[in-house]
Amino acid sequence: MAGFSFEVEARDGRARAGRLLTPHGEVETPAFMPVGTAGAVKAVLHRDLDEIGARILLANTYHLMLRPGDAIVASLGGLHGFTGWRGPYLTDSGGYQVFSLAALRRVDEEGARFQSHIDGSAHLLSPERSMEVQMNLGADIVMAMDECPSGEAPREAVAEAAARTTRWAKRCRAAHRRDDQWLFGIVQGGIHPDLRETSARELVELDFPGYGVGGLSVGEPKAARGPVLELLDRVLPAGRPRYLMGVGTPEDVVDSVARGIDLFDCVLPTRNGRNGQLFTSRGRLSIRNARYRQDPGPPDPDCPCRTCRTTSRAYLRHLHLAGEMSAATLMTVHNLFYYLDMMREVRQSIRLCRFEEWRRRILHRLANAEQDGS
Amino acid sequence: MAGFSFEVEARDGRARAGRLLTPHGEVETPAFMPVGTAGAVKAVLHRDLDEIGARILLANTYHLMLRPGDAIVASLGGLHGFTGWRGPYLTDSGGYQVFSLAALRRVDEEGARFQSHIDGSAHLLSPERSMEVQMNLGADIVMAMDECPSGEAPREAVAEAAARTTRWAKRCRAAHRRDDQWLFGIVQGGIHPDLRETSARELVELDFPGYGVGGLSVGEPKAARGPVLELLDRVLPAGRPRYLMGVGTPEDVVDSVARGIDLFDCVLPTRNGRNGQLFTSRGRLSIRNARYRQDPGPPDPDCPCRTCRTTSRAYLRHLHLAGEMSAATLMTVHNLFYYLDMMREVRQSIRLCRFEEWRRRILHRLANAEQDGS
Repeated sequence: MAGFSFEVEARDGRARAGRLLTPHGEVETPAFMPVGTAGAVKAVLHRDLDEIGARILLANTYHLMLRPGDAIVASLGGLHGFTGWRGPYLTDSGGYQVFSLAALRRVDEEGARFQSHIDGSAHLLSPERSMEVQMNLGADIVMAMDECPSGEAPREAVAEAAARTTRWAKRCRAAHRRDDQWLFGIVQGGIHPDLRETSARELVELDFPGYGVGGLSVGEPKAARGPVLELLDRVLPAGRPRYLMGVGTPEDVVDSVARGIDLFDCVLPTRNGRNGQLFTSRGRLSIRNARYRQDPGPPDPDCPCRTCRTTSRAYLRHLHLAGEMSAATLMTVHNLFYYLDMMREVRQSIRLCRFEEWRRRILHRLANAEQDGS
Repeated sequence: MAGFSFEVEARDGRARAGRLLTPHGEVETPAFMPVGTAGAVKAVLHRDLDEIGARILLANTYHLMLRPGDAIVASLGGLHGFTGWRGPYLTDSGGYQVFSLAALRRVDEEGARFQSHIDGSAHLLSPERSMEVQMNLGADIVMAMDECPSGEAPREAVAEAAARTTRWAKRCRAAHRRDDQWLFGIVQGGIHPDLRETSARELVELDFPGYGVGGLSVGEPKAARGPVLELLDRVLPAGRPRYLMGVGTPEDVVDSVARGIDLFDCVLPTRNGRNGQLFTSRGRLSIRNARYRQDPGPPDPDCPCRTCRTTSRAYLRHLHLAGEMSAATLMTVHNLFYYLDMMREVRQSIRLCRFEEWRRRILHRLANAEQDGS
């Protein structure tokens, strides 16, 4: 498809480093996508994202279809024209948010009927409507609509959801008509190896240019994730990008890279930033902690981000407690920098064939870091 | 005093253009000071302030003495060390906020006893304590503690407050001991010419390096302001800076420059920015207005600020309605740019001896601009 390609350029074990080309620019993988729910990453400007090296953003179909509405976004040039972000975008299908946020009326084979959490208005999100919305939003990568059961759902429900996800994936393919977008299918199947394998094989048969892995950040036991990803690494085509949806902590990301994942998104760095929880090279740091009241040091002494270059823990704590918005901005900038910088290290260590060594070192450091180690 | 000077370099009518030198840099006057209440201008970073040309910030003594506490700020290098802002700061005395925000217990000759609006703790703000706090905060310019009656107070109360303000000014002078700070006296006297003249003469006798004008943004009739300022222009020493506290709209600022004022501060550009009210070259614009739902144009087509260069009205409206903090950031940046750019035009037109002409033009434009003219 015009303007798109994906190339795995280096491998170390199952970990892959590569390059994803989109009509709005190139993304080195493994990559982390900051979450810009409503067409903006909360508390920061595009300039901040540029400065910390963000390359691709995620935006949420559910939120944007409700406000300002996908037709309005389309009339203003799609997400790129509307928001002014020049790099690539990925949109999700909207399904996950319908299940988690909306007052849900009914899910059936046609789709999900729900009420907007904003104004209570009634909507149908079907595979066809999800494609229509995502074509209107105009992201570079769009996702097929899946049914994502909770991590505690019984096997039978997981199996049914996976089967429906395949049927919906076919309908999405049929409804999707923009050739400047890549449509990814989504693998479901929970923590059950046989269901995962079936789901993956059915989707591979549909020949998507890339694959999302759903249902692995929805309350399932963490230990179940590794075996599922290792199975998928065997079943999914080696030359196509894999996106693990909604995952996760730094440890989760590193472990999933080790199992062949190329793309990630998660609200953790942004949400924690607004809540005063910082990711640092020495562990997590809660800026509300009274021990930082007079601490003149930077949030993370090893970090070169703007926040750590210009702001002390004492000042950041003060801004946070005083309810100043700039606290959220400064901490979001730091946390996103932490994630994006970690991804740079991930890519470099894979290209140098030192990923396992690097991974052991960072996991050891994270495991031994105090909760508020400084 | 070391590191300080003020020079009036050009005049046009009563309007003056000059240069205020402080230990933390030079400020061209007339100047507008963004309000950084708690040691941060709300919703923006220092970088934004640098970029739009802010040179001097105001911080509120009342807020900072309560949180994080002036002793903590002092231990971290004063406001400059604590906040990282490298340019000059001015702090107010704290008196005005005690009168307007705190649960007030009693004001007597000693000072004001009050309860913190944050945690209810009991405090005394006296002239001596105000000086102690302001010396701890370490701003370049500090203000004597005044008693500021409401604009509707009876003449007798205004007279008493002005007399007390003089007595407090003497105590402030006696208590102030940092020679890297300039201490300004504050003229009171409401809208009564004779009281204003007495207050001003008493303060001039105390020989302050600069003078604040209080009691002119506290609910008094607007028409009363001009005559008071013209009177003060005759009584206050021509070579010392005059600071009109808490004023005001663009029209107010321009009219007060015409009457010899050099320094301004006001929450309008920042507060309105957070509320979605924009100052533009074509009048005020409320971003919530439904007419901007699909408007691809910049907030102000004549404005070169970052917000107007990168953001459409439709996107800004969406961010504001979605409750995104970046809406507040973007609109605060624009509004402050509007004010600071207006001050650049003010200074240039005075230096070119074209101030009256420029003033007539801008006031005419502001008067004829639609509320939501675009």
